[in-house]
Amino acid sequence: MRKLPFDKAKLEAIAAIWPTPFHIYDEKAIRENAKRLKKAFAWNKGFKEYFAVKACPNPYLMKILKEYDFGGDCSSMAELVLSEKVGNTGEDIMFTSNDTPAEEFLKAYELKAIINLDDITHWPFLNRVLDEAGVPGGEARWEGRIMCCRYNPGPLKGGNAIIGKPEEAKYGFTRDQLLSCYRQMKEAGVKRFGLHTMVASNELDPEYIIDTAKLLFTLAGEIKETAGVEVELVNIGGGIGIPYKPDQKAMDLEYVGDGIERAYKELVTGKGMGRIRLCMECGRCITGPYGYLVARVRHIKNTYRLYAGLDACMSNLMRPALYGAYHEIVVPGKEDAGETSVYDVTGSLCENNDKFAIQRVLPVMEPGDLVVICDAGAHGHAMGFQYNGKLRSAELLLQTDGVTREIRRAETLDDYFATLNFDGL
Amino acid sequence: MRKLPFDKAKLEAIAAIWPTPFHIYDEKAIRENAKRLKKAFAWNKGFKEYFAVKACPNPYLMKILKEYDFGGDCSSMAELVLSEKVGNTGEDIMFTSNDTPAEEFLKAYELKAIINLDDITHWPFLNRVLDEAGVPGGEARWEGRIMCCRYNPGPLKGGNAIIGKPEEAKYGFTRDQLLSCYRQMKEAGVKRFGLHTMVASNELDPEYIIDTAKLLFTLAGEIKETAGVEVELVNIGGGIGIPYKPDQKAMDLEYVGDGIERAYKELVTGKGMGRIRLCMECGRCITGPYGYLVARVRHIKNTYRLYAGLDACMSNLMRPALYGAYHEIVVPGKEDAGETSVYDVTGSLCENNDKFAIQRVLPVMEPGDLVVICDAGAHGHAMGFQYNGKLRSAELLLQTDGVTREIRRAETLDDYFATLNFDGL
Repeated sequence: MRKLPFDKAKLEAIAAIWPTPFHIYDEKAIRENAKRLKKAFAWNKGFKEYFAVKACPNPYLMKILKEYDFGGDCSSMAELVLSEKVGNTGEDIMFTSNDTPAEEFLKAYELKAIINLDDITHWPFLNRVLDEAGVPGGEARWEGRIMCCRYNPGPLKGGNAIIGKPEEAKYGFTRDQLLSCYRQMKEAGVKRFGLHTMVASNELDPEYIIDTAKLLFTLAGEIKETAGVEVELVNIGGGIGIPYKPDQKAMDLEYVGDGIERAYKELVTGKGMGRIRLCMECGRCITGPYGYLVARVRHIKNTYRLYAGLDACMSNLMRPALYGAYHEIVVPGKEDAGETSVYDVTGSLCENNDKFAIQRVLPVMEPGDLVVICDAGAHGHAMGFQYNGKLRSAELLLQTDGVTREIRRAETLDDYFATLNFDGL
Repeated sequence: MRKLPFDKAKLEAIAAIWPTPFHIYDEKAIRENAKRLKKAFAWNKGFKEYFAVKACPNPYLMKILKEYDFGGDCSSMAELVLSEKVGNTGEDIMFTSNDTPAEEFLKAYELKAIINLDDITHWPFLNRVLDEAGVPGGEARWEGRIMCCRYNPGPLKGGNAIIGKPEEAKYGFTRDQLLSCYRQMKEAGVKRFGLHTMVASNELDPEYIIDTAKLLFTLAGEIKETAGVEVELVNIGGGIGIPYKPDQKAMDLEYVGDGIERAYKELVTGKGMGRIRLCMECGRCITGPYGYLVARVRHIKNTYRLYAGLDACMSNLMRPALYGAYHEIVVPGKEDAGETSVYDVTGSLCENNDKFAIQRVLPVMEPGDLVVICDAGAHGHAMGFQYNGKLRSAELLLQTDGVTREIRRAETLDDYFATLNFDGL
């Protein structure tokens, strides 16, 4: 049974102010985890985590993470602006996008972000965008700036279960394109370089992450040799998973840190290469386990199955409906209840796949019971839609001092109707 | 090759005012289709289609459909309010929801909507809600009102590929519960009744729809016999599919109309039952084929595969990423191009499943080309999310007079940030 940072009485007190459903994040646990990640990679001077903003684009959480020097991994205008608003600019932003529009390249350039190109055509495209914006050309254009390229290893790297086979992924450069792009950038006066790949999603095998670092360290050596370019940072992407299921184990960050350090000594220091800063773009493992979707049982229904209908629905958390993902469910106050039943836990969306759990053994519930859906801190609120006229809920922060604070208000019907002009009807 | 209601020049003229991506609906085709549906069921006096608002919750389209007496099938507060705003109240609303909250029951009651109960516990729940709201009890409470129940046939009805097996679906009453509820409602003074089921989604076999009507006509007879309740309307639900793929055939509405008429003569008139009004709650086949997502090629990328990156993404149309659904793609001006290539057509969302088509043979494209994604008129804009900071696009109406009109504006960053209070940062 998952241990929660609040008991039933505390949750009821919170729900008396902010009616269910809501997302609530555990500040203390987020801080402890951030500290732990930083420490696991402290051997690497300049190590930096760029929080994948899309996982949980809440500026209050981003600001907490900033205290641990976490930057922002952005891939849209909204995410760039969010980062700017929390004070992340310059090299605190890794702009890792794909199929990138001109205006986002320009914004990233204006913010002096690290621009991580996804394709070889983006290099001339970016230059054209800057030309058209009147940005001076030549070496001055790139002075002090880090330009990065995203590598797609193709069939050279076995696929991850979620992200699929690299050669079928839309992201990144082939090896030849990568080398060619570094040469072109060098010629154009770029002096600072990064190298990136992202071949995992929700991966729990530490070796997969260590192998990714090895692949990039080796490639950095080849880039130096064949293109004459020394990369100063290697971004191994994100993809560190979290144990959604009770039988899964969290990734041992210290083990990963040690493994990558060994690889670094062998493939970077050992090969006589200069210092390389290690970066990553994790999202899920940074906030995922520390966010909870809190709902209330609205109806118990007994037909061909037993249903617990909640006041939350897939608009609050899409993963179970979208991926058939497992999320642990706790019924506060009934953790030790002897009596259990098998439930489908549903939302009210007019879609039969709007179920948080299917045939799950849970304490016997009744209308009014609070229900906590775990591991909703990443790709939870962020992925919510308004399908079927459902509104997105509030986000709360359970602060380190025990006080709860609203960090995003719940939507209203006015928000839902904001883009409509009824006067013309 | 799909025939479009606009050519390249027309689209470019529209895109000069409303930049891509946008959704555009073909008013003329929507009207013709609505007329055709009405005609196919004209044999049934009082036939009524309740447009499934969730498919395309745009009041301008709902208002056009209202001209053909189409009401609204609603299952949320937002959809009830939308219906009210277009002038649909009373029996123009079928409130078919599940896991229903008190405030939505109350709103539906206030609007005098047909309330379609999903569960036997909803009958006492609804009464409690009305009691608490001070609505007088007794027969007066139900005067003139139609109360409906949603039947779940369970293992008695084979499943539909999309909606799944009825006995695993969260919706509806068992047969015993249904009979019991009609008895309770009758005792409480309800005098007008409806019967509903919904066991299909995107079904293309007309027999499945006809069989559903047969099932309900037969059940209506049993309800009369065993519960002494005569239903005045039978709502066969929605679920009529559309031919997304070139090798699929649209459902022959006239064939369905004739088939249901024969069943009616046998099972209703032939059994000496009184007149029953036929209703349906279609969404997809009402607007689906007449809406288009118009985008522009932003980048062409050639790595292990050839990619056409659009300025639209899965936020504009989730179905391909969500269900692996097929949507036809047309490149206006290149319909007859001899030269083709095999593309993955992608969006810019930082998710590898953000692809509108995988390994599709299409005319050779270049950046700037307009691309039209067909059959986006239902469950298209409606299902869009803002994941990854992506904004939802405008909806346009290509009017019968050839003039284009904005019926929903595109979102801005301010909309995206509306629920955040940056002052507290």
